[in-house]
Amino acid sequence: MELQFLGTSSGTPSRARNVSGLALHAPGSKHWYLVDCGEGTQHRILRTNYSPMSLRAIFITHIHGDHCYGLPGLLASAGLLNRSEPLLIAGPPAVERFVRGVMESTELRLPYAVEFAHVAPGWAISSLPDFRVEVAELSHRVPSFAFTFVEKSIERRLDIGKLERDGIASGPGWGQLQRGEDIALPDCRVARSADYLLPGRRPRKLIVAGDNDTPSLLAAQAQDAHVLVHEATYTEDVLQKVGPGSQHSSARATAAFAEEAGIPNLVLTHFSPRYQPAGNGSPSMADIEAEARAAYQGSLFLASDLQRYTLDRHGVLAAVPLPNAS
Amino acid sequence: MELQFLGTSSGTPSRARNVSGLALHAPGSKHWYLVDCGEGTQHRILRTNYSPMSLRAIFITHIHGDHCYGLPGLLASAGLLNRSEPLLIAGPPAVERFVRGVMESTELRLPYAVEFAHVAPGWAISSLPDFRVEVAELSHRVPSFAFTFVEKSIERRLDIGKLERDGIASGPGWGQLQRGEDIALPDCRVARSADYLLPGRRPRKLIVAGDNDTPSLLAAQAQDAHVLVHEATYTEDVLQKVGPGSQHSSARATAAFAEEAGIPNLVLTHFSPRYQPAGNGSPSMADIEAEARAAYQGSLFLASDLQRYTLDRHGVLAAVPLPNAS
Repeated sequence: MELQFLGTSSGTPSRARNVSGLALHAPGSKHWYLVDCGEGTQHRILRTNYSPMSLRAIFITHIHGDHCYGLPGLLASAGLLNRSEPLLIAGPPAVERFVRGVMESTELRLPYAVEFAHVAPGWAISSLPDFRVEVAELSHRVPSFAFTFVEKSIERRLDIGKLERDGIASGPGWGQLQRGEDIALPDCRVARSADYLLPGRRPRKLIVAGDNDTPSLLAAQAQDAHVLVHEATYTEDVLQKVGPGSQHSSARATAAFAEEAGIPNLVLTHFSPRYQPAGNGSPSMADIEAEARAAYQGSLFLASDLQRYTLDRHGVLAAVPLPNAS
Repeated sequence: MELQFLGTSSGTPSRARNVSGLALHAPGSKHWYLVDCGEGTQHRILRTNYSPMSLRAIFITHIHGDHCYGLPGLLASAGLLNRSEPLLIAGPPAVERFVRGVMESTELRLPYAVEFAHVAPGWAISSLPDFRVEVAELSHRVPSFAFTFVEKSIERRLDIGKLERDGIASGPGWGQLQRGEDIALPDCRVARSADYLLPGRRPRKLIVAGDNDTPSLLAAQAQDAHVLVHEATYTEDVLQKVGPGSQHSSARATAAFAEEAGIPNLVLTHFSPRYQPAGNGSPSMADIEAEARAAYQGSLFLASDLQRYTLDRHGVLAAVPLPNAS
């Protein structure tokens, strides 16, 4: 599984960071998925290997502009590329109102269908090719959600020793058993697939959260999750100054929750533009990192734009070296 | 007067060119003006000396997304900067519907007033500090306009020889005469300002046109214009293939009009992303340039993103060398 950040800034873009966007891709899939789509997301996509043509679905965590103002332009560009496949947009109902309103007021006509799913507590979707997706409701100034992506296609492995012990000869029948089909044996016995499949590995599970001032709302989703992507808009001291009305999380609060929930990989994002690159002034990204490290013992990452991460089958998250700054 | 292009691509951004946006600035003014605001315009502004705080007015030529989808994000970012000055947005009525609709559906609240002016044939505005602005109606798939910017503050110069011949001694009275005030002389004569001002130079006049398939619609505006900024979306051969339904102009058509109208400076922009940088494949920007040069004898420029131009008091347009590619 691959994650690539398209934007990691809160509220407004900076020269180094765009507003929110995250690309997801399952190994071998011809599709990819987008979580949030701030203004300029399509510009970032131009700097990746992804295309608006193969985008299968867009998930919008909440209706604030830094998470959705890139939608109309991305839809329009996919139309100019002559996309014909339907595109799913899942998010709070306001997202459909926003997109349909813009399409109408700006006379945007698309050569493909846009399908909307209204996200609410308990919503889930199992019909996408690569992931089962669930939501958890968060706490922010507007309805905000986390999307949990659970990998769908776990390799099935046959118990070869048992097959041999039971005298089932190798051949096309093994393939059928592996695909989940029962087979009739030459001696009229029936071999049931379920009896010869080894227990599957745990599916990879990734949580991508929208803006949220209460990370513990993710406690149920966090069980068995391999990765949490969550905002850390401020350090604790700045959050105290800004006040609770912003309804954002500090690096400390997010990290403390991930520690308590036992999530092995934590990726922080959605940083206030006031945080400078480390060594470039104060407050800095180093402050965010130090605060999070003090509260969290797992693998910690601070996302940056265009950074790619791979999550392997063992649940290990690793940053992919960037070829060049672009 | 300074022009700086923020985007020069048609329809969709490329890696090198953003969609439409053009910054205008009058010498010494603390304000600046924006014509069109495609998605990502605020990102381009981050790479200029301009700020959303000092932006006085935005002019939108037409409602297509590549000319206006950057508005909501720019308005939001000015709000996050705590802008308090009102901001004027002038454009076809659909622009107000678009912006108000987005503000409502995405719960965007601003700490400053946005004032809308509905542009229609004959519309003009004289109350802005730096320019008188007029419009001309163009021909495109939706209502589209050109904005003509006529410089307001022409230096007044005194006829010193005549003042001396008439025995009017230098002193504070000269300043009053220069400011347009009549003065009483010690000998009870009255000196009238109008009698001692030299004829003013011609105000600088710049036309920035929206999408348009009929450049000759600008014939009246073109009289005495120093600069025309106009689309040249395609070369003539590509336009023939695309067909007239796109309602765009070829480089040849735009250049031929500027030649016939006697406009001394022509800046082409809004290029289809199919045109590659010269030497990088076909069709190329060199094709656009060659076609325009064959039809136009004046000063020809092909705009690129972040390129600045100065228009001096003599009506000479010059490109400002770029410090560095960004």
